[in-house]
Amino acid sequence: MISVLLIGNGNVATHLKKAFLNANTVTVTQISSRKLKNVPKADVTIIAVSDDAIAEVSAKINNDFVVHTSGACPKNDLKNNSRKGVFYMLQTFSKDKIVDFNKVPFCLEADTKKDYLLLSNLAKSIGKDVYKIDSIQRKKLHVSAVFVNNFTNHLFKIGHDICTANNIPFQILQPLIQETVTKLETLSPEQAQTGPAIRNDKTTIKNHLELLNEHQQNIYKTITKSIQNGN
Amino acid sequence: MISVLLIGNGNVATHLKKAFLNANTVTVTQISSRKLKNVPKADVTIIAVSDDAIAEVSAKINNDFVVHTSGACPKNDLKNNSRKGVFYMLQTFSKDKIVDFNKVPFCLEADTKKDYLLLSNLAKSIGKDVYKIDSIQRKKLHVSAVFVNNFTNHLFKIGHDICTANNIPFQILQPLIQETVTKLETLSPEQAQTGPAIRNDKTTIKNHLELLNEHQQNIYKTITKSIQNGN
Repeated sequence: MISVLLIGNGNVATHLKKAFLNANTVTVTQISSRKLKNVPKADVTIIAVSDDAIAEVSAKINNDFVVHTSGACPKNDLKNNSRKGVFYMLQTFSKDKIVDFNKVPFCLEADTKKDYLLLSNLAKSIGKDVYKIDSIQRKKLHVSAVFVNNFTNHLFKIGHDICTANNIPFQILQPLIQETVTKLETLSPEQAQTGPAIRNDKTTIKNHLELLNEHQQNIYKTITKSIQNGN
Repeated sequence: MISVLLIGNGNVATHLKKAFLNANTVTVTQISSRKLKNVPKADVTIIAVSDDAIAEVSAKINNDFVVHTSGACPKNDLKNNSRKGVFYMLQTFSKDKIVDFNKVPFCLEADTKKDYLLLSNLAKSIGKDVYKIDSIQRKKLHVSAVFVNNFTNHLFKIGHDICTANNIPFQILQPLIQETVTKLETLSPEQAQTGPAIRNDKTTIKNHLELLNEHQQNIYKTITKSIQNGN
């Protein structure tokens, strides 16, 4: 049995609590980060608070093994005087949407093999995909996630804007969007690249630019150049 | 029964032929665009050739109703002296991959209601999602597709590059990528936007930029600015 103390009230803490409650090998307690008196003991204390608050909250915790859940912060942002680790889940969590932890990659870091194994067992009590990721790798992973999630979503927004302005239902684009992702199962993104940029089809590029506003043109040109340069 | 003549030997013609052969209400003949003598008659003649060749090939066809399959070309690029239309499928076709036409949006255009209905029946013989899209809308749709498909894929490539350079398996990012797309079923891209750009989290943005090379920084800055400006 692994005892877990969850600190925090946000989406990550809420979804984790729900999952741990269903796990046979875990007991879980949750407290607010504003009530850090008489903190219960636990095998693993998971601080699931905003990045800015990790140092302050962890400094107040006397438990043996304290981990945070942030993709952007190094392990040593933790200021507890005991063992440290990271329990980062690379997924977006929405408040009202059920999380399938079998599709969540757990990116784990600890000081010792024994602690890593503990985090790994904890992750496998609710999910299956566990990766050993150190603080430098995690920073890189976090910025990669911005490209493939936040920035990709913004390209979807531009597609949505163009459709809306021309009375085209955005759903027309959804099978293509899904296929763009499905292709990654068999091809690298580099192998999967198609379109006027990689073909250097100057006529189509010129025609496309004429259809766009200045802001859209700016993004179109920047990404087209990057595709052509192989960046 | 609808008789179809397919002109062309590329991916689109090949996949369409296979699908029409399985349709109960369609008969299909395929010829090369290089052999335009004694062209067989048909209810619908589908020219599935490269954009540059549409005018030349269509000028040589005397059949009654001729359509092209291009997203980038207006209907009037067809130079036949009879009825014209467009049978554009908004999807990427790979040579070796089976196409599920039930997930292909058919974007149709014709001069008359009767011809539109003919194209619609033809599309529904192999698929289900049919949209009436005129030449102006189709141009806009085509440029939108570049954003959501080609450009998105390039962002995946950048994520892939960062992972590879840091010994991180790219597959860690795939559940997040899939979730980015799945969210579009319930939220608009604007509603779904998260991350440091929309939060204007200057510390994280600064930290991210320090991890990137000059080309990646350029894209990071351009898209971050666009997200923040709501473009």
